Amino acid sequence: MFNFFSKKKSDDLDITDVIHLDYASATPIAPSVLLAMEPYFKNEWANANAIYKNGVRVRGVIENSRKKLAQTLRIRPEGIIFTSGGTESNNLALFGYTEALFQNGRAYSDMHIISTYIEHPSVLEVLKELERRGVQFSYCELDEDGRIILRHFESLIRPETILVTCAYVNSEIGVIQDIKRITRIIRTRKDASQNPIAVHLDASQAPLWLSCEMDMLGVDLMTLDSAKCYGPKGGGVLALRHGVTIAPHLLGGGQERGLRSSTENTPVIVGSVEAIVRAQDSWEKRSEAIALLRDEMFSLLQIHIPNVQINGGIKFRVANNVNISIPLVDSEFAVITLDAHNIAASTKSACGESSSQGSHVVRAITNSEERAQTTIRFTLGESTQKKEIVRAVEVLKKHVEKMRPFESFRT
Amino acid sequence: MFNFFSKKKSDDLDITDVIHLDYASATPIAPSVLLAMEPYFKNEWANANAIYKNGVRVRGVIENSRKKLAQTLRIRPEGIIFTSGGTESNNLALFGYTEALFQNGRAYSDMHIISTYIEHPSVLEVLKELERRGVQFSYCELDEDGRIILRHFESLIRPETILVTCAYVNSEIGVIQDIKRITRIIRTRKDASQNPIAVHLDASQAPLWLSCEMDMLGVDLMTLDSAKCYGPKGGGVLALRHGVTIAPHLLGGGQERGLRSSTENTPVIVGSVEAIVRAQDSWEKRSEAIALLRDEMFSLLQIHIPNVQINGGIKFRVANNVNISIPLVDSEFAVITLDAHNIAASTKSACGESSSQGSHVVRAITNSEERAQTTIRFTLGESTQKKEIVRAVEVLKKHVEKMRPFESFRT
Repeated sequence: MFNFFSKKKSDDLDITDVIHLDYASATPIAPSVLLAMEPYFKNEWANANAIYKNGVRVRGVIENSRKKLAQTLRIRPEGIIFTSGGTESNNLALFGYTEALFQNGRAYSDMHIISTYIEHPSVLEVLKELERRGVQFSYCELDEDGRIILRHFESLIRPETILVTCAYVNSEIGVIQDIKRITRIIRTRKDASQNPIAVHLDASQAPLWLSCEMDMLGVDLMTLDSAKCYGPKGGGVLALRHGVTIAPHLLGGGQERGLRSSTENTPVIVGSVEAIVRAQDSWEKRSEAIALLRDEMFSLLQIHIPNVQINGGIKFRVANNVNISIPLVDSEFAVITLDAHNIAASTKSACGESSSQGSHVVRAITNSEERAQTTIRFTLGESTQKKEIVRAVEVLKKHVEKMRPFESFRT
Repeated sequence: MFNFFSKKKSDDLDITDVIHLDYASATPIAPSVLLAMEPYFKNEWANANAIYKNGVRVRGVIENSRKKLAQTLRIRPEGIIFTSGGTESNNLALFGYTEALFQNGRAYSDMHIISTYIEHPSVLEVLKELERRGVQFSYCELDEDGRIILRHFESLIRPETILVTCAYVNSEIGVIQDIKRITRIIRTRKDASQNPIAVHLDASQAPLWLSCEMDMLGVDLMTLDSAKCYGPKGGGVLALRHGVTIAPHLLGGGQERGLRSSTENTPVIVGSVEAIVRAQDSWEKRSEAIALLRDEMFSLLQIHIPNVQINGGIKFRVANNVNISIPLVDSEFAVITLDAHNIAASTKSACGESSSQGSHVVRAITNSEERAQTTIRFTLGESTQKKEIVRAVEVLKKHVEKMRPFESFRT
């Protein structure tokens, strides 16, 4: 009678007929990932902290996953902390790093953090809270592509600077920060040996498209989110370089070396590692293929939609991100029209979708309220096909033609 | 090819041949719960915050789950916050409640919290951190059964008291606190209208065995953990009575009415609600049946194991908990011997299992280091059978007979 995950529909990852172009907000779970999770939902459900054999076996599974991921990220297994997602990893990184210093006797007002205005809310909201505690902040200037201006970044470093935090790939406009040069500036500056500065990288949007090897990037703390790379929801990782000390944000039984208490979520840990390792195994090929489609979509948009504006630079852009503004076209109506034609797109990142404040990212890089209010984000998946983007542009073009007279009437 | 969750072994919840008597540390997922989760792993994976129809549909599913659980717990749907488990719910309750007061201008040193020494680490560790921030604490005296001495409790209430936190069912000795009388004392005291005191109940071990209706209990905040009642790991709830204000502990995109940011974990939310509602639907029948087995196990232990001591009272004890100490018998060896005979038991709660400090709960109620070092906990599941407990006692009896001469030789 127990017909769980039956064979029917087994090859459909997606809802039938919907063209999903919002993969930055959610991905399906890859079949191989779901398969890897299966035993831990059904048979191997013991608590990993138990001392009897079923518990010990589960502990072994979790520690093997940890080693596998550590190898992929080029750090020690002890550096991997499993969390409930990207948001928790960002909270743990920022609260945990500052809290550890605070517990070590450093006042919050003696701490200075460098970041940007285009970070994800799970970074920006934590920074606001740290500011309330007295931490000082500087926000880097960005060029029109959305990239950190390195000369300005360098000028912001002070003796009290303890941390730099930014996204590897911006979730709205897909800009890739030059993280290697940022870490090089930090490591090679004159007072580097006296004043260590840690770099926290939010790599939630990266594993499918870019290398996340921490040695190569030179970062100290890195956030990953399983649900953005064909893994289960509720799975995240905070990866720490050897020697980085943080305080826990969830207190309790002392799991994850005391840094993240809570009974280990075996199926999600196994699935998250499978997904991230799978993503990293083939990021180059995947990235190359999807970047071609992305560029084609930009071309089609420029051909068919007059005055379309591309948000963020093209050169340093993640392979799957297409973000545009169309002057005088309300982006929420556009997304709803696309939806009526079974095309899933978004106006900005899903987190803030319900608010009507426009894109804080586009506002920050363009300084234009109108552009911030008229953004449409398409994010491609690893199986996105040309016909899907052609169809999306076609529908958008018709919508724009229909809306334009009305919109201009209003102005 | 995709053979996920195949029919084979479908009726075995447990690993073949193992007698699991550690259900307080982990339960399997009930087949009906897993079935309810299925669509959200496979097809309905959209982000619940998206404005297109796949997202809106997922939002509807989550909100329906929220309503269903709210009805079971007798609160408003807005009072349900989905978290990653009991530990996070306890952290959110305690940090969140005090932080909200702090943000409202109250100094930590003007706050006083009443608790007990036998709470779970996810409560005790948070209380320690709050103490470091200046919060004052009182710990209730307990009787030899492990119950809060109500007269002493009442004497601890001060004008600065803001919160009482305790477990409904203690996870080690299974004692049930008389929560209704505790809340009645608080609500009916003279200064109740001037000095509101909130009650936080950690009900992680309760839903299978006791009613968790919040109106009847009179509590303000309640922690639930899906993984302890045949639901998925990584699923928790903090339930709030109408009017209770807390600050968030995870900051970000503002999900869960701003109180718990992170992309909603649809399958786990659905599964957690299914599990808790299922547990509550039949707690009375389940409790009656398993209490008989529990009492039988106590009798068998007293008949076959000389000098066995029962930890915690019998009268106010959850239906599935059997906790004993055997003088001179090292409990870790006993648990390992039981394991060698395919019987899963524990020395104390799984969280602290790896430490060798004995049971802090048994130490607190017996004031005996020896008893704290020699505890064995058996926790029965809803499908535990008589032959399983008979077998467990038989194996334990042989182990004790084997160990006794050696142990007495040592003394």
